[in-house]
Order: sequence, then C-alpha cells, then structure tokens
Amino acid sequence: MAAAVQLLVVAAAAAMAAACCAGMAAAAATVEVTWDVEYVLWAPDCQQRVMIGINGRFPGPNITARAGDVISVTMNNKMHTEGVVIHWHGIRQFGTPWADGTASISQCAVNPGETFVYKFVADKPGTYFYHGHFGMQRAAGLYGSLIVLDSPEQPEPFRHQYDDGGELPMMLLSDWWHQNVYAQAAGLDGKDRHFEWIGEPQTILINGRGQFECTLGPARKSFEKLLNENVETCVDDQKMCSDQEKCLRRSECGPYCPRSQCAPVVFNVEQGKTYRLRIASTTSLSLLNVKIQGHKMTVVEADGNHVEPFVVDDIDIYSGESYSVLLKADQKPASYWISVGVRGRHPKTVPALAILSYGNGNAAPPPLQLPAGEPPVTPAWNDTQRSKAFTYSIRARKDTNRPPPAAADRQIFLLNTQNLMDGRYRWSINNVSLTLPATPYLGAFHHGLQDSAFDASGEPPAAFPEDYDVMRPPANNATTASDRVFRLRHGGVVDVVLQNANMLREEVSETHPWHLHGHDFWVLGYGDGRYDPAAHAAGLNAADPPLRNTAVVFPHGWTALRFVANNTGAWAFHCHIEPHLHMGMGVVFVEGEDRMHELDVPKDAMACGLVARTAATPLTPATPLPPSPAPAP
Amino acid sequence: MAAAVQLLVVAAAAAMAAACCAGMAAAAATVEVTWDVEYVLWAPDCQQRVMIGINGRFPGPNITARAGDVISVTMNNKMHTEGVVIHWHGIRQFGTPWADGTASISQCAVNPGETFVYKFVADKPGTYFYHGHFGMQRAAGLYGSLIVLDSPEQPEPFRHQYDDGGELPMMLLSDWWHQNVYAQAAGLDGKDRHFEWIGEPQTILINGRGQFECTLGPARKSFEKLLNENVETCVDDQKMCSDQEKCLRRSECGPYCPRSQCAPVVFNVEQGKTYRLRIASTTSLSLLNVKIQGHKMTVVEADGNHVEPFVVDDIDIYSGESYSVLLKADQKPASYWISVGVRGRHPKTVPALAILSYGNGNAAPPPLQLPAGEPPVTPAWNDTQRSKAFTYSIRARKDTNRPPPAAADRQIFLLNTQNLMDGRYRWSINNVSLTLPATPYLGAFHHGLQDSAFDASGEPPAAFPEDYDVMRPPANNATTASDRVFRLRHGGVVDVVLQNANMLREEVSETHPWHLHGHDFWVLGYGDGRYDPAAHAAGLNAADPPLRNTAVVFPHGWTALRFVANNTGAWAFHCHIEPHLHMGMGVVFVEGEDRMHELDVPKDAMACGLVARTAATPLTPATPLPPSPAPAP
Repeated sequence: MAAAVQLLVVAAAAAMAAACCAGMAAAAATVEVTWDVEYVLWAPDCQQRVMIGINGRFPGPNITARAGDVISVTMNNKMHTEGVVIHWHGIRQFGTPWADGTASISQCAVNPGETFVYKFVADKPGTYFYHGHFGMQRAAGLYGSLIVLDSPEQPEPFRHQYDDGGELPMMLLSDWWHQNVYAQAAGLDGKDRHFEWIGEPQTILINGRGQFECTLGPARKSFEKLLNENVETCVDDQKMCSDQEKCLRRSECGPYCPRSQCAPVVFNVEQGKTYRLRIASTTSLSLLNVKIQGHKMTVVEADGNHVEPFVVDDIDIYSGESYSVLLKADQKPASYWISVGVRGRHPKTVPALAILSYGNGNAAPPPLQLPAGEPPVTPAWNDTQRSKAFTYSIRARKDTNRPPPAAADRQIFLLNTQNLMDGRYRWSINNVSLTLPATPYLGAFHHGLQDSAFDASGEPPAAFPEDYDVMRPPANNATTASDRVFRLRHGGVVDVVLQNANMLREEVSETHPWHLHGHDFWVLGYGDGRYDPAAHAAGLNAADPPLRNTAVVFPHGWTALRFVANNTGAWAFHCHIEPHLHMGMGVVFVEGEDRMHELDVPKDAMACGLVARTAATPLTPATPLPPSPAPAP
Repeated sequence: MAAAVQLLVVAAAAAMAAACCAGMAAAAATVEVTWDVEYVLWAPDCQQRVMIGINGRFPGPNITARAGDVISVTMNNKMHTEGVVIHWHGIRQFGTPWADGTASISQCAVNPGETFVYKFVADKPGTYFYHGHFGMQRAAGLYGSLIVLDSPEQPEPFRHQYDDGGELPMMLLSDWWHQNVYAQAAGLDGKDRHFEWIGEPQTILINGRGQFECTLGPARKSFEKLLNENVETCVDDQKMCSDQEKCLRRSECGPYCPRSQCAPVVFNVEQGKTYRLRIASTTSLSLLNVKIQGHKMTVVEADGNHVEPFVVDDIDIYSGESYSVLLKADQKPASYWISVGVRGRHPKTVPALAILSYGNGNAAPPPLQLPAGEPPVTPAWNDTQRSKAFTYSIRARKDTNRPPPAAADRQIFLLNTQNLMDGRYRWSINNVSLTLPATPYLGAFHHGLQDSAFDASGEPPAAFPEDYDVMRPPANNATTASDRVFRLRHGGVVDVVLQNANMLREEVSETHPWHLHGHDFWVLGYGDGRYDPAAHAAGLNAADPPLRNTAVVFPHGWTALRFVANNTGAWAFHCHIEPHLHMGMGVVFVEGEDRMHELDVPKDAMACGLVARTAATPLTPATPLPPSPAPAP
C-alpha cells in the first residue's frame, strides 16, 4: 500500500468506506478539499528538480467521490508568478462549464496569491484524473487521480466481478523530463534552427515514481534487449535508508529505500482474490504499455464507460486515456513485476517497474522485496498492427450499450498536419494552428464581448481540400494561426472525422490521442489512408461503438467520432500530447451560445482580460476615502 | 563595441546623436519601444539555460532617452503562464505611480498574452536600469540598462570633463545561478530542514556575459589566490568560432569566439581621451567590486545624482546602485583587464573579466586580444572598513548641492532581523515580515477598496523595543507576516533609520542595500551599533548628504535617511537582495491617499483582484447575443 499511503485522500473517507456496499442507497455528499498549488523540490526519479506540487507533494492528492457527489476544491495558487487552472479530465461539467479548468477557454488563470473554488458534480462512475491546463504545467507535475465510485443510481455492471476490498490503488502513469517546462517551451517556440524538440523522456513514472537511467534488480538484461543499449542497475545503498529526511527529499536515497521518493510502487494482493486495477495516463508525450508478469487482465472500463470485457496480456494506453482491468491473483504467492514501456516511438527510456506482491495485506511497507526473474518486456514499439488490434477490440458493453443517434446534423473534418509559421514549427488543423485569447471564450460569450475578445468573424475551416494527399508532406507547409471557434447549435449531433496525414518529414505520420472536454463521444470507426464518405460511412459502427473522451488517430489513418452538443459552454478538443497542443494542435467548440447568459458563472472565473477591463469603469472611488492619518510628531 | 552591438537601441537614435550637444536646446521627445517578454534559451556563461529575455535576447535592450523625454514601452507578455511587470529603477514616476512596475503594489501583473503600456517621464539625467519586480524574475534575467542623457534644462556639471563621443557602453553587472528561480524559491520557502539557501552564484556577468568555473588567459593564478582554490583556464577551441549558429545559442562555443554569448565585453578607447563609464548592479545577491588594470576612476554620479568628484582605484557597488566614473585613457596603447569580484560574502565565484582596449575605435569586433599580464585582484572580501570608507566618501556635489529640509515631521525606525515563521526562514522589519496582497495597493486606494484588499486596520510597527540587543540573535526569533502599509501624509518629511542587527546565527550580521521606489532620499549618516537619537542625531550630515535611491546598511550598523513624501502613490522600500525580498524584507509607503482619485490610472493596470471582481457586476450580457449559426446540413 506504499502508493496509497503516499496519496493523500482528503474528506473522501466516508465515500471510500462505502465502497463495499454499492447495492445500498447512499445520499449524495460533498467532497471538500483545500489545495495549495506550489513549487516543490522533489526527486521522482531519484534526481531532485522543482515540480508543481499540491499541498507540498507530488503527485497531487487523490480525490475519491461517489457518482452524484459534489466535488468542491478550494485551490490556493501559492506559486509566485504563474497563474494556474486545473482540468478534471473526463468530468463532463454539465451546468458548470466554468469549472472545466482550461485557461483562455473556460476561465481566467487564477493569479498568484488568489483562490478559486472548483465545484462540480462527479457525474458518473469511472476512472479519471486531473491536471494543469495552462501552458505546459501538466508536464511540470501538476496532476493526480480522481476516482468516482459507482452508486445505487449508477451501478457498475462489473462491480461484482471483483472482491470486496479489491480496489487496488490507482496506477497513474506519466513521463518526466529533467529540462524544465519553461525551457521546453522556449525550445518548441524556437525559430528556424533554434527549434529544439523535447526529445524522449528521461523517466517513466508510475504514481510519480521512477528510476532515471537505471533499473531494478534483474531487469537490466531484458531492457538492454528492448532498448538495444546499455542499461545500468540502480545503485543499492541500503545504509542511506535510515536517513528519512534525505529519503523524503533528496537524491541520496536510491529506489531501494522504501521511504525514498523514487522507490517503486508495490500493489499488495491476496492469493485467490480478484482485483480492480485502474490505470490512467497523463503523459506529456508517450504511448505506454502495461504488462504484468504472469497475469492476464480483463478490460472492463475505458474513460468512465463500460466496455464489453476482453482479456489481454498487456494494454496500450495513450495520454488522456483511462482503463479499469480485472486482475485475478491466481499465481503462487510471490512478487511479480509490472513493466511499463514506451511504444509508438523509438524508445530511449528505460521501462518503469512496479511490483505486484502477494501476501503482505495492508501491513506497513516492508523492506523492498524484488520479484525473482526478469520483468516482462512490453511489445515491440513499432508493432502498429498490435496497437490497432487492441484499440479496435474496445466495444460498448452489451448489457449497458447506449448506441449513438442514427445521424448527425453537422460534419466536421479535421486534417492533422505539421506545418511552419514564420519559421516556427506548428501543428495545424485544416491548416489553421490554434492560438488562445487573453479573455476566456466562455467569459466573452457570457458578457457579450465575443466580437472584441477573439476573431468572431467566422469559424475555422471545417474541411480540407479534396485533393490533399495524406501520404505526403504538406504541399503548402505554411500555416496561419487563429483563435476562431466552432459555434455549435445546442442539441445538435456532430460528426467529427480526424484525418491524420504525413508530417513535414517524408514517410512519417505520428499517432495523436485527441481528447474532448465536456463530453463523451462515440468512436464510430477507424481506418487507414484518407476517409472517403462514399466508401467508409456505411461501414461505421452504429451498433456498439464505445463511448470515450479520448480517441487515437493512427499514423496516416482516420478516426470517426459522434457526439451530441448538449452541454452549454466552451470546450477544448485537442491532441493530448502536451508539446503538440503547445504548438497549436486543437480546436474549440462553443455550444449553446444563446444559453450562455443562463449560466451561473462565479465572478472570480472571469476577472481578467476584457471582462475585467470593460466592467471596471468608472475608476473613481466607490466609497469616500478615509482621512489621511495625522503625521507622527 | 561588442557589447554595444549586442544591446539593441530602439527608437532612441535621435537622442543619442544629440549627446554631443548638451548645450543646445532640444525639444522633449517620446522614446517608443515595443517589447516581447519571452523565454529564451541562452548561454550567458557558456552553459545553456532558459532565461527571461526581451525581443529574443538577454539582457533586455538598452533604452536611451534625454531628460524630460517621455518613455513609452509597449510590453507584450509572451510567456505562457507567468505574469510580468517591469520596474524602472531610479525613475521617480511623479504622476505615474501606476507605471512603477511593482506587482501587488503599483499594478496587477500583466497576464500571459496581454499587453501593457508603460508611459512615464525620464525625469532627470542619470544612470538607471530596469528589471522584473514579480517573484524572482529579476534573477531569471529580466533586466537591462536605462540611460537618461542630460538636457539644456538639466545639464550635468561634469559633462565637459569627458570628451565628445566619450560615453562608453554602460556596464550592467549581475550574478547568475544555474538552478532556476522556481527551484530557488521552493528552496527558500522550504520548511524546517527543507530550507535550501541559494548559495553563491555560479557566475558574475558583465552585460550578461561571463565564464562559468573558468577564467580567461593568465588570470588563473591571481584568482586562485583570491578564492583559495583551483581555477581552470577556459578551453580555447577556436575552430568552433566559425559556426555562428552554435556560437549564438549554445555552449559549444567558448568565450574566445567573439560572437559567442559568453565572450567578454570589450570597451574600446583612444589614448588621451577621457571617458564616462556608467556602472550599475542588478545582482540578486552579490556586492561587487570593479577594478581596472592600470587606471584610476573619478566618481561623479551615483543613482542619478551628482556627487563631489573623488578618485578611486576600485569601486564597490551593491545591488540596486549605479555610478558614473570618469576614466582617462592615459596609459600606453594596449589592452587592459577589468576585474569584477565578489566582496562582503566569502567568495566562491570566479571574478568576471572585461577588456579595456586602446586603438580599435569603432571598427568591427576583431579577434579577441587578451591583455598581457594578470588581471587586477579586487580587495579582500572581508575588509569592511574599506567598504565603509568608499561609501562614506560619497557626498553631494558642492556646486549643485541641494541640502535636505532641516527637520522631519515623522520618524520611522526599521529593525532588520532574520526570523522564523512556522518553521520557515523569513526576514522581518520590526518583527513583521512583508507579504503582498493579490489586489495592488494603488488600485485598492484608487477604487476605495483598501479596507477589503489588505489589512488596513493599522500601520506596521514604526519602532522596536528599547532594549533590543542588535549584537545578538533575536531573543524572540518568531515573526508574523503582514500586508499592512505605512500611510504617509502628502508633503511630509520622513526620517527613516535602518537598524541592522545580528542574524539567527551568532556573531553574523549581513549587509543590506535598501532601495526606495518613487524617490531619492538624503543619506544623513551611518554608524556602528545601535542608533541612539540622543548621541547620533546631532552628528548627522545636514550640509551635503548625498541623494540616492539605494543605501546600504552595514553589518551591526545603522543608516539614517530623509525624504519628502511628495509623490502620490504606493512605493516599495526594500532590501534589493532578491532572496531577502522574497523572504519578506521590505515595507510599503502609501503617500497622499487623499489624492489617489486624482490619478489617471489606466484600466489595464488594475484589472485583477478585488478591483476586477467588484467592478465586474453584473454578469449579464452587455449587448444582445447574436443568433446561433444554423447547423450545417
């Protein structure tokens, strides 16, 4: 339970205690927490750096609520110069679009020294997480897990397939760079030859823990084969372990000291029981693969939606996705490796390791006992067919299937291309790269300032040329930037086709996981090459498409989605790869603008930009001034 | 002229051209510049880091104006998550207190993506600089030089003592850390044993250029003696010099490539001429000493005020100070070293070097020619008597002396102590450590919101206990934090006695350079031990005290100042050591609060905090909303 001990569960104890009794009625409660967002010196991979933490820790505290509960987070920005917002990834925010936590879209960034209260309903059970959504603050460490337990009103159909008490600590995956995000951004913004790509991560983290440029115990040989280069075994200096101060803050204590910030996570199980393991990824870049030595997994949930169960040896997880798997402790009592490796890009990062340990129960963390034998090796990074097979396996669960509306009344085609603008690399959608205005879209519409706050003279293009060749670099590699938005009719049914294409470099197309705020969408289908309505529309899955909030578009391929624009607000839809979003890879949907004035938006959410300026007249004193104090003698 | 080439002079060409003709009448002009404040990857000491630059460069562009000119800086904040302000150090801002550039005091920090226009009068000739004044952004590299030339209305009496064309590029000194300021702040904020002091700088920079852990040419032996440790000679890899791309951005090119970002500054002179050299310091921590091989200097200006000329071998300069010296090129034609070393703290940093070169004129930068022989060594770091002797030598210039008012009508005693608060190190003034509110003081008063925006229930203490022993650590080492301000009557004459004291550690007291915004003050006197009015008041210098904006208080000593509170606004008065201010070492003076409503404050300056919230009602749309676009077919 080392990871669970690390994760601070605040005010959700009652909800957790009730986890045993999903069949019983429970009144909706409010889960209230208070967070200080602040810099912390932390050693997530045994190397100390500055990170954005919450309440003095990295990663941020876990939140656990029950479906229907209100979550109220009082967030104090204790950073000195940076604004901050927090996005609740997967929560749809019906009626509270101002709480979606996207700077420039749903609210003003909260200034240093200010407090903002996020208050929203945990609308359905599932596996979620939260993260910064301003600049690259997610990559700086601002994230944590958010679990919504099921309720009598919203039961999970697979609840009785795992044991009481069988909820393992959530596994939140991320990737980590030693170069800070300000330098990362400066490199990405660099003109011409001053562009510097962030490169592959230094370390993969499991619940904020990893080991930089080394691996635990006998894993070295396996990982040398995987990476095709030397891998060191982490130095085991047990005599340092007794210095708790150093082990909690500094790189002096290696991963073998259980109290060290870079010690591996241990998941404790009892033989014979079945467990639910929640897995989510908030990586900045990496597609990860999770493989457990000697155990299979049954996938039952994806992004807070039920999927028809299927059994796998390992799972791919893209940034922005979440899964629940059922895990049967059906092996002999021992410790087993969990490997988390990079796929989809040529890996240069040593896979992360965690431990599945039989028989420890909930006792205090024992001295670290490494599993015998070599850890499993995740599948070949470039086996795209395997990735597709996994993703295509995901279907809506038969007994709770909610099929999509039969037809859409709006179609939007989004071509994903890498481009250049004024000597700088950008990602573009239909040859337009997203920039964000200083006044949030939601505030602009709420205050009737949309004509001044951004380019409201039209929408971005909703299609791309008929003759565009997705297999080749863009013929016109120049792009323009725009802060235009798609303005959707409330209640409309929208089809989006994400069309991948070749990058600037010949014969390369990357994978992009697209995440939609404020909604789940049905994933109607995937395909290779260019989407052709005449050829492909009839073959889309109208019967049991999975509901997701994140969907991948494969290299040189397309992905077709459908959603209902029934959520008044301003919603980002973007590639969840942090540097790609930084470089403009997204669009914004504004829904129900004629209903915006009905929203009850907290003043604090919009006290910036044009809203603050326009409303702030007159500047004469509101109350009479007090007399000056008399001077001292 | 390498340094001058590096410094971008914008829109001030006319003013500079007129520098030759101070006797001629010149109409006041507006110096207009547009700046993008943005992250840059830079190698100021041959090691690449991210810095806060302006228009893609570090340090920021030089501004040159003539006394009486209006300076208009349109500042675009191109950082992604950080707010920003810029303080114009030494400019008094009569009538424009909102342009003083102090976050939480004179204005709201300018949000990412926003633009703010600073517009103020260059009120008197002198040597100034500008820098960030939000969090520790100054230490992140946000600074540059600001030169105000004299005018017929405000002639400088020493103008005819140096040659036409004898204005050398300004020498702006700073210190540099490889750990970024976010990590520095996290260390300073650390509780109990998690406190981490920033330590001594990695490198001293002259106009943003230095050499990390090495020195040029034959300087090694001298500096080894000074530092009492090994010093390396910088690697001279001339074959790299031809790769201009690398030399402009990366650490591949060492200091011997003239185009490298870490090449030393060369000051070019002609034999027989007399020059004016402006020197200013924006160090985060260090007291520096400047010594020129084989040349004496005549001090004529300090902080934009005339001083009675005196000749020195070297000058001490504290953070926040500026000087002009006259320098006669009276040696044989050759190159000479300029050394800049640390004093006042046990130095661990290799002195910085620049070159005074005879005979190059204004030709293109030649291959770097190092002076023969060893560079001069700056005086012993712990020779405090020498530092006092230099500082005490500074008197108002006889023929332009403006003596202070005969008496003050308010006296404020400010005890400087190091303290603890809730396990954290703080610096305190009369046992109160400064915190700043989210709503700027100036905006709070301007809008009549002072009773809500900060603790307006009283002033901070203006004295400390009679029996406080300044020679010992504080008996009560606990402090409290407050955002109270001193509220000064407009036109009042204020005396401030800065009283230094022992730190928490036995028998240690540090030097603190205090800087006052919005004013110059007269430095009436200095002394050792505790200030005693009965014993010391009569001995203060009422005849020719120098006017300054920054004054040092020596270890275990006191400094007495006088100023006239004739500038309506909210003004910081603080230790100019960046980490000390971060830890609370300052106070705020609010002057003429009954006149605040007469100020013409731009809306943009106060569009945050309570001002934005209070004024932003109602939230219903100001204009009718347009109809929703019809859905596409």
